[in-house]
Amino acid sequence: MSGKYLVTGGAGYVGSVVARHLLEAGHEVVVLDNLSTGFRQGVPAGASFVEGDIRDAAKWVDSSFDAVLHFAASSQVGESVVKPEKYWENNVGGTMALLAAMREAGVRKLVFSSTAATYGEPEQVPIVETAPTRPTNPYGASKLAVDHMITGEAAAHGLGAVSLRYFNVAGAYGTYGERHAPESHLIPLILQVAQGHRNAISVFGDDYPTPDGTCVRDYIHVADLAEAHLLALKAAVPGEHLICNLGNGNGFSVREVVETVRQVTGHPVPEVVAPRRAGDPAVLVASAAAAREKLGWNPSRADLAGIVADAWEFAQHIARER
Amino acid sequence: MSGKYLVTGGAGYVGSVVARHLLEAGHEVVVLDNLSTGFRQGVPAGASFVEGDIRDAAKWVDSSFDAVLHFAASSQVGESVVKPEKYWENNVGGTMALLAAMREAGVRKLVFSSTAATYGEPEQVPIVETAPTRPTNPYGASKLAVDHMITGEAAAHGLGAVSLRYFNVAGAYGTYGERHAPESHLIPLILQVAQGHRNAISVFGDDYPTPDGTCVRDYIHVADLAEAHLLALKAAVPGEHLICNLGNGNGFSVREVVETVRQVTGHPVPEVVAPRRAGDPAVLVASAAAAREKLGWNPSRADLAGIVADAWEFAQHIARER
Repeated sequence: MSGKYLVTGGAGYVGSVVARHLLEAGHEVVVLDNLSTGFRQGVPAGASFVEGDIRDAAKWVDSSFDAVLHFAASSQVGESVVKPEKYWENNVGGTMALLAAMREAGVRKLVFSSTAATYGEPEQVPIVETAPTRPTNPYGASKLAVDHMITGEAAAHGLGAVSLRYFNVAGAYGTYGERHAPESHLIPLILQVAQGHRNAISVFGDDYPTPDGTCVRDYIHVADLAEAHLLALKAAVPGEHLICNLGNGNGFSVREVVETVRQVTGHPVPEVVAPRRAGDPAVLVASAAAAREKLGWNPSRADLAGIVADAWEFAQHIARER
Repeated sequence: MSGKYLVTGGAGYVGSVVARHLLEAGHEVVVLDNLSTGFRQGVPAGASFVEGDIRDAAKWVDSSFDAVLHFAASSQVGESVVKPEKYWENNVGGTMALLAAMREAGVRKLVFSSTAATYGEPEQVPIVETAPTRPTNPYGASKLAVDHMITGEAAAHGLGAVSLRYFNVAGAYGTYGERHAPESHLIPLILQVAQGHRNAISVFGDDYPTPDGTCVRDYIHVADLAEAHLLALKAAVPGEHLICNLGNGNGFSVREVVETVRQVTGHPVPEVVAPRRAGDPAVLVASAAAAREKLGWNPSRADLAGIVADAWEFAQHIARER
């Protein structure tokens, strides 16, 4: 049965891949994005596009929507540390306005793009959803506040909601991939080195308590992630707020990722060791048990070389575009 | 050295007692309160009064203030469960506006009225400040979001801030005491029974794993609490956010409080056992070690009979006022 979905932030990386998956599943999609960090060309063909801010959501949210998938957010950890107010205003203030518009219009289903950054430094890995939430930066704190806001909205007003806490999203889905300005994510940065656009990749700390001393993260293919969103739409139950981590449950170190890029691309990738960054935990790996059990999710693209190969194809695509 | 302080919510219970303490210490006080739950007569003589909302804080915050003491908030747990959006808008949205106004005016010191409700159901008692924060209602979640907001503001913009997480504030300071409409706090409710304004006090659950089966809470005298705020003004360090629990570290059960009211007032207080309320933990007791160590706080009114006696005097005062 096809539905009509509002995708906020649907011109961004994850939002655009999810929008594309919705379209491929036969749904109608309206993308709402203010293009502050999204790209007009990220909006998939076949989706309607509204250039606007979620704080004005009431202008566009009406009862014709079956659900909202909410990706619009400021999402640069480093920026959040120097401009925290932007994160509270955009992410928390923006979601307040969006939820109010949904309440008014009677749209009672939401899938929210949350993050592993809500947990902060973990006491135990893999991280389960009941772990303490101690965000170490305003980005994570603002996303945690939204998760709490959604919990209250579900209980009070019957919203059916699923928050998906992403670990390290990577890879690409055809011509829909990751481009941030400035780029801050590991795999795109390494690929820029492989392409000769950067001289070397900075490895922030090689003295962590990990097998090779570099940070270990859980990389998840954006297409696997997108599939979880479609499953979440089915799993949402009125009055309940389900929170699921999305990761593969496998960690790869920074050095392993760099080496994989060398193998996949055939290009040299010089490394430069730099000091640790404040707030970078040694190991962040998800327990994906809840997503598997409660959403029926079964990620099929966990192979790091495959994730990097798709990201590499996309990096070459945008290089040709320039 | 005398200073000039803005007290938001200074027409409410705790805010008015703190304002009075500031005045008695020789400071200049401006109270900002929208009177949505505060009372005009709560504003102490000698304080300037501005009737207004913290969301318009920029109108009144200027560089003449040495610090802001921020009490203005919606604070009814039960209401927050049915109208969570009000709590996000007033508490979180309101504080965003207040912090922006302070940044703009260069006011770089803040004492914030936080709450034990940020912790939710504790894993261990007494509760220390590093305990996990898992609020069980939107009131607690909104206060936790503000604590996180302040942490980021301090780190990014040099604010010197102290959050004080209150346990069960009680008692009165002369004619400055506790009156909520509707009343929802235990001691004022029991006193209304003693005064004959209510037939009986409801005891929500008598099968908790506590000595007498009723919930145990940490009652702190509002004057002890007020003194901690003046100490917090001295302890605030630019760029740092200190979080301290305020409680006595002693717990009293609901039955013990009822019995104390009988003894102090000499009136009968019938009890009615009612079902447990959702989200009411068995025991909430603070570790006050951080407040003692970091603020130099030394509460001197921990005796429950004394707390009740002061509350009883105030209850008789407002009964005469009617």
